[in-house]
Amino acid sequence: MTRYQHLATLLAQRIEQGLYQGGERLPSVRALSQEHGVSISTVQQAYYLLEQQQLIVPYPRSGYFVRTRKASPPIPAMSRPVQRPVEVKKWGAVLELVQARQDPNLISLGSSQPDLTQNTLKPLWKQLQRVGQRQDPSSFMYDQLAGTPLLREQIARLMVDSGCQLSAEDIVVTSGATEALAVAIRAVANPGDIVAVESPVFHGILQILCGLDIKVIEIPTDFTNGISLEALELVLEQWPIKAVLVVPHCNNPLGFIMPPHRKRALMTLAQRYDIAIIEDDVYGELAYEYPRPTTLKSMDIDGRVLLCSSFSKTLAPGLRVGWVVSGRYFDRVMHAKYTNTGTTAICTQLAIAEFIRQGYYQPHVRRMRSLYQRNLETFACWLRYYFPEEICVSRPQGGFVLWVEMPEYMDGVQLREHLRATANIHIAEGSLFSASGKYRHCLRMSCSQPWSNDMEKTIATIGAAIKGMLLTYQKNVPV
Amino acid sequence: MTRYQHLATLLAQRIEQGLYQGGERLPSVRALSQEHGVSISTVQQAYYLLEQQQLIVPYPRSGYFVRTRKASPPIPAMSRPVQRPVEVKKWGAVLELVQARQDPNLISLGSSQPDLTQNTLKPLWKQLQRVGQRQDPSSFMYDQLAGTPLLREQIARLMVDSGCQLSAEDIVVTSGATEALAVAIRAVANPGDIVAVESPVFHGILQILCGLDIKVIEIPTDFTNGISLEALELVLEQWPIKAVLVVPHCNNPLGFIMPPHRKRALMTLAQRYDIAIIEDDVYGELAYEYPRPTTLKSMDIDGRVLLCSSFSKTLAPGLRVGWVVSGRYFDRVMHAKYTNTGTTAICTQLAIAEFIRQGYYQPHVRRMRSLYQRNLETFACWLRYYFPEEICVSRPQGGFVLWVEMPEYMDGVQLREHLRATANIHIAEGSLFSASGKYRHCLRMSCSQPWSNDMEKTIATIGAAIKGMLLTYQKNVPV
Repeated sequence: MTRYQHLATLLAQRIEQGLYQGGERLPSVRALSQEHGVSISTVQQAYYLLEQQQLIVPYPRSGYFVRTRKASPPIPAMSRPVQRPVEVKKWGAVLELVQARQDPNLISLGSSQPDLTQNTLKPLWKQLQRVGQRQDPSSFMYDQLAGTPLLREQIARLMVDSGCQLSAEDIVVTSGATEALAVAIRAVANPGDIVAVESPVFHGILQILCGLDIKVIEIPTDFTNGISLEALELVLEQWPIKAVLVVPHCNNPLGFIMPPHRKRALMTLAQRYDIAIIEDDVYGELAYEYPRPTTLKSMDIDGRVLLCSSFSKTLAPGLRVGWVVSGRYFDRVMHAKYTNTGTTAICTQLAIAEFIRQGYYQPHVRRMRSLYQRNLETFACWLRYYFPEEICVSRPQGGFVLWVEMPEYMDGVQLREHLRATANIHIAEGSLFSASGKYRHCLRMSCSQPWSNDMEKTIATIGAAIKGMLLTYQKNVPV
Repeated sequence: MTRYQHLATLLAQRIEQGLYQGGERLPSVRALSQEHGVSISTVQQAYYLLEQQQLIVPYPRSGYFVRTRKASPPIPAMSRPVQRPVEVKKWGAVLELVQARQDPNLISLGSSQPDLTQNTLKPLWKQLQRVGQRQDPSSFMYDQLAGTPLLREQIARLMVDSGCQLSAEDIVVTSGATEALAVAIRAVANPGDIVAVESPVFHGILQILCGLDIKVIEIPTDFTNGISLEALELVLEQWPIKAVLVVPHCNNPLGFIMPPHRKRALMTLAQRYDIAIIEDDVYGELAYEYPRPTTLKSMDIDGRVLLCSSFSKTLAPGLRVGWVVSGRYFDRVMHAKYTNTGTTAICTQLAIAEFIRQGYYQPHVRRMRSLYQRNLETFACWLRYYFPEEICVSRPQGGFVLWVEMPEYMDGVQLREHLRATANIHIAEGSLFSASGKYRHCLRMSCSQPWSNDMEKTIATIGAAIKGMLLTYQKNVPV
């Protein structure tokens, strides 16, 4: 046994014995070299071996950590929202979140913005430049109502991966996923109607429903299986629901991918009660599994699924290009699109269409997928390190957001206000993700940005704030 | 008196005697030179003199025409719509019109698209190209909800010309004027409410109201003074109106500019009945008078005016950049914007902001204004020439659309279908501009494209079709 193998075995034993716990930082290379009287390169070789054995993980500029696989924080239990239709409010807090996105003085972990710094995105700039160079007057003219045919063809091609056989004629391009969802909802529900959603649910969806005077009913949702079909069926028995809106792939905020048999069961349920399904697939392309999961739309035999998606999470949100595949509701979607924004800007559509056509899309998305997966692991690891032991954390199967559940008596709103006032950090409290005031003790954190020392400080600050608040509660409210 | 002066006097006399009538084509230079035994250049000098005396107008590649000032067709009388709230329909015909815009086989006179071929627009392409070159990740990120500050500052500067003293904070950028109108309406009215509009009114406005389940009541409108305040007051007495939506400058479709005292009276009326005013100023910058007319917004002392506008008619509709100035309804407009499209695309906003900042906007708009004015005169002249005598034609004070009233028994829908089937020409029948089925005997024609021989053929074809239909009617229905 060589020296480095010996050292590696010793360290592996210590990890097994719990001396170094999951998520914990291992001693520095220099410290170990002094402790064991071996050379720096011997320690590095030992760490490399342990890394290959998947016992430890290196994080750039942070050192080595014990892998958290076995010891990662537990997943939260299924949600239990209020099961009656409610009106959506909370615009004030959502507006604050939206405005925090652009505040250069704030560290915003609340908003789910993709990483736009990768080189694989560069050709998209080039394409935009070329649209300007070409000076074709038709790209300054009104677009077709359904969107530029070049882009619709490329979207139809991309969607083959999700199991959908579509043509350009099935697709209506929109100004981002927000408009896709807005026109899809307008196509199936009128003011005063009720739509069922997962719980927790992306706050943007709640606000869109609120803007259209539509009530929501929140359905219990499991962190691995998605929306509870049993609870949904009970609700369908009791209430005149017009549609169910789900985010089945890399769910925002919970991160699950709905298993295929659950998707099929949801389709059957929708048919039995004759309701529409609005499928938000905006994170679908960022699933860590390969091939990507197939959509509800791909199982749709009677045109009741409205699939909404966009390039905001995969490419760039600032381009505002999304789309709807609307099945039997096509005419109503077209009318809603016409009265919402008329048509969509052409130059951004053309830039994206060429980016995809020239083969830049797949390599970029592949890269982002693995980057986000690594980022999420790092974040989860550090949460374990800096946050109190009692937390539960979601285990996302794609995308770049984490859902953190703190002890029930924690107040996320108070935490947000405290962090903003004392540390210029903005987080999204869980209660934004419920129309009925649930999840006040939860957080959603965006983990799209690559790990850095500054980010470690941020996580440490949040962790310390939570611990501090927990201590205060425990003092004040004796259990 | 020289030879050419002698010839000019002779021709002027003939015009005065009615030998050559307003709108009629004068003999060619060659024919006159032969008739009077003078040189070609003498005739040209004579025509040049008459042109300076404003008796005749030259049209490129078409020869000289008698000016129609005195002999132009009469303006239609004030409209008399049904005065009760009605629901909007007619989506099928509007969709056909929208789709005709992009059909390369169709000559579309129905859709009001600006001329995008002028050199003064070229720097806008350059700016778009530069946004691509700069590769600044922040322009691929989510924008501020209210829009890019650089653009909002420029819009605030432009609006000084219309009498408004605004700051960037007063402006919310939207995806075109359609979204501006949609969010403005959503901010002041709920589903089931009633909004008063001019009659006839742009079909897009009717469809937006229809999409939001809002009823409209059409108010009689005069071809020079705009909406009848007397009729509006009667309606306000009788119905719970939430807002009045007007297009006071270069009205679409009638072309009037509301006189200042009528605007002040409208403001007073809105205050007395406490209703909101939605002011659509999308053609305001294309007024032929200088300085451009001041907006209702500039007279707004209590924040009840929502001004909606866009760059779709002045620069390029394909960029989809509009804005709202929303006064006391700011918060509701922000919520509606968030739920409609989230944010607006950034790169198009940046390109426009730089185009304005670098001083390209004013020269371009000045050029377009005079081009459109000349185009409209030419079109009106040729309508007089090819259309039956019984028509009335609007006399626009800005913009590029004409409103043509045919005898009451003419059927615009039948005419549209006939022209599309036989000549690949698409026109917009007047009934699109009414929720209560009025104006079936009217047409709106877009005159933005420079005059050409092909356009003359098109106008001749439409004229012949109308004459043919009139003859058939007169045979079948003896008066």
